[in-house]
Amino acid sequence: MVIRYPNGKQFKSNSNEMTEKKKRIIKKEKDISFSNRGKTLEDEINDTNIYYLNQQIAIIHKKPVPVQIVKVEYPSRSAAVIREAYFRTPSTTDYNGVWNGYYIDFEAKETENRTSFPLKNVHQHQVTHMQQVTNQKGIAFTIVRFSSLDRYFVVPFNILYEAWTTMENGGRKSIPLNVFETKTFEIKPGYNPKIDYLSVMTNLIVNEE
Amino acid sequence: MVIRYPNGKQFKSNSNEMTEKKKRIIKKEKDISFSNRGKTLEDEINDTNIYYLNQQIAIIHKKPVPVQIVKVEYPSRSAAVIREAYFRTPSTTDYNGVWNGYYIDFEAKETENRTSFPLKNVHQHQVTHMQQVTNQKGIAFTIVRFSSLDRYFVVPFNILYEAWTTMENGGRKSIPLNVFETKTFEIKPGYNPKIDYLSVMTNLIVNEE
Repeated sequence: MVIRYPNGKQFKSNSNEMTEKKKRIIKKEKDISFSNRGKTLEDEINDTNIYYLNQQIAIIHKKPVPVQIVKVEYPSRSAAVIREAYFRTPSTTDYNGVWNGYYIDFEAKETENRTSFPLKNVHQHQVTHMQQVTNQKGIAFTIVRFSSLDRYFVVPFNILYEAWTTMENGGRKSIPLNVFETKTFEIKPGYNPKIDYLSVMTNLIVNEE
Repeated sequence: MVIRYPNGKQFKSNSNEMTEKKKRIIKKEKDISFSNRGKTLEDEINDTNIYYLNQQIAIIHKKPVPVQIVKVEYPSRSAAVIREAYFRTPSTTDYNGVWNGYYIDFEAKETENRTSFPLKNVHQHQVTHMQQVTNQKGIAFTIVRFSSLDRYFVVPFNILYEAWTTMENGGRKSIPLNVFETKTFEIKPGYNPKIDYLSVMTNLIVNEE
């Protein structure tokens, strides 16, 4: 139901619940139009991928956000405008490509948490996809940024999978920082490339074999 | 016109010719309204990729169409609606993934032409991307369907590139059918998978090395 003021303007509740919802909406809008926590790491990785591309080190791209397009207008003398579309659930991870004959496939995740990485940041379809990629001898991993610590880790799929199955069996719902420090590969952020994640690929390949 | 029996039941012709003709008309209408030339090959490849995925033969997905999202609405209790967005030019090909440790990357093209494949169907960014993939030891190719002939070919990147540079140097603007017949790999369409393009990968790898 829409409530209107006498001047015709729409009434908007200021209750806390509403504000929380608004915040979520604004956050969501930011996700799409500007940048948020996720976008920051995304930007860094995109910059890194451009560096790899220009230096002919690897061809890795972020996949576009999948949308279901329902209505498109074609104004004369200008570009087609999508007027109705919906977000679809992706069936894969966000990044893939090729490096030196290897198929590379990964997801990028950030957390503000200082002591562990909550697994709620990871989705079932991503785990399933990375499992399939691993079965096909591709290299699957997750780049995790602990934003508050400014630390970056490349997490081999088998480490993520171990934690994921532990959680599914009723165990811990996060990966503690010390597991990152002992079982994954830390990347020191640089100037260019910003996040040189390919520098640990050799370790990752040895780790998986 | 609907013809009815005295009891009100609708008259239905039983003549074979009519039924066959009707079927063809219905088939044609379907072709036009629900799918177009491009869509048809895309559907066949998507079905093939689902088969590969289910059979654990390969993990190959079509990339989403890249769009620049400008405006999103969040109606309460329902999914976010994109209200303004624009198509962006892709920087890669449409399909990629991993098969048995190999990075696979390709584009799908159709032509109604019966004697040659016009290179205007191919875009510079696709050629550039496939060149980069080849340099990184990935497998790049184009699946070309001659729709009027119902013939499918897997075209190794080097063959496409040869024709592309010839055109750029003022030469022929298409690839003649006989080049397809002698220098590329024909796929006979099957039931499931429909277009078993991975069946020629071994030839393609030998061809590129």
